Amino acid sequence: MARTGAGDEPRRSEKWKARRDAIVDTSAHVFAQHGYHATGIAELCEVNGLGKGAFYHYIGSKEELLAAIHDRVMDEVLAGADRVAEAGGAPSAQLAMLGDELLEVIYRYPDHVWVFLHEFPALTAERADQFRVRRREYEARVEGVLQAGVAAGEFREVDPRLTAMAWLGMHNYTYLWLKVDGRLTARDVAKPFADIFIRGIAGG
Amino acid sequence: MARTGAGDEPRRSEKWKARRDAIVDTSAHVFAQHGYHATGIAELCEVNGLGKGAFYHYIGSKEELLAAIHDRVMDEVLAGADRVAEAGGAPSAQLAMLGDELLEVIYRYPDHVWVFLHEFPALTAERADQFRVRRREYEARVEGVLQAGVAAGEFREVDPRLTAMAWLGMHNYTYLWLKVDGRLTARDVAKPFADIFIRGIAGG
Repeated sequence: MARTGAGDEPRRSEKWKARRDAIVDTSAHVFAQHGYHATGIAELCEVNGLGKGAFYHYIGSKEELLAAIHDRVMDEVLAGADRVAEAGGAPSAQLAMLGDELLEVIYRYPDHVWVFLHEFPALTAERADQFRVRRREYEARVEGVLQAGVAAGEFREVDPRLTAMAWLGMHNYTYLWLKVDGRLTARDVAKPFADIFIRGIAGG
Repeated sequence: MARTGAGDEPRRSEKWKARRDAIVDTSAHVFAQHGYHATGIAELCEVNGLGKGAFYHYIGSKEELLAAIHDRVMDEVLAGADRVAEAGGAPSAQLAMLGDELLEVIYRYPDHVWVFLHEFPALTAERADQFRVRRREYEARVEGVLQAGVAAGEFREVDPRLTAMAWLGMHNYTYLWLKVDGRLTARDVAKPFADIFIRGIAGG
């Protein structure tokens, strides 16, 4: 489901939503190239082939656009975490699946992730709060799997928070080098990363 | 030793170098707050309490300043890697020491690292080349320790490049949450991270 980041918008048509998503994707590319602060509304209108009035019909402000870029990534990341929770299984298998899902998003949305990781301090007020809540929600999913593994004796007695940050760093940081035109796919990376991490926290 | 990033400058006094380092540090803070592209020379002069002429006496251009910020971090990181190589010992001990050294730099230079990781695409020509060479040099140190561990049978047969990227991600990504005013020091994080990683690639 598309999230707008504002949450108080009127119902829109599917066509409107599809066009808005396309604007979000195109703008993510421009922000990734030139930076959020250095990109003006005029440039955003030009790359999207829209007049100013039409642009504001889809996006209320530059900051709303930034929030929408975040949401597009977080929607995917949290949907992946939902699939993992639904699949269930041993905590080690769930952690490996979380890694598959996360690297797949990073691989598919390089521009969004670049903007997401670099420009989040530009979000203000409720948008900053919402971003923190959703990010925290995802971190809590990872911590939950780690805690379950410790409780079941599959993992040793690690600090769930610190271990989640280690896991997130290892995976998120691939945004700098995991490229669609590179020699490795997300899957090629996910497997050896899971091997390292799961052995690293194995119990017994 | 202070690196200028340009490499073709005249000999300068210690006083000049100390003042230049202070300008680099202050400017790193401003770039971290507002972004490299969004920060102008006028603002850099103001925060450093310098007129334009005096500013250019220390720094040739905004891009040279960015290169100097990179060099300040890379000098420290490579000096740490030198200490580890001199200390020698088992590859697992060397990898743990590399982690100690790297997290200490990230902890001590949060602004520089933020700028370093976010703004490196703004470097051009020889400065971009020099940055790549030094970054690659550090990655090669990590890969070298991993290869030595595999050769000695202390580590299993991992891909040294991919494993180095996993290790770097886990450590570098702490720049987002490892804070001087936080509850954890660099050492508090380095130990559990080393435990995860070294167990994760242990041979046998």
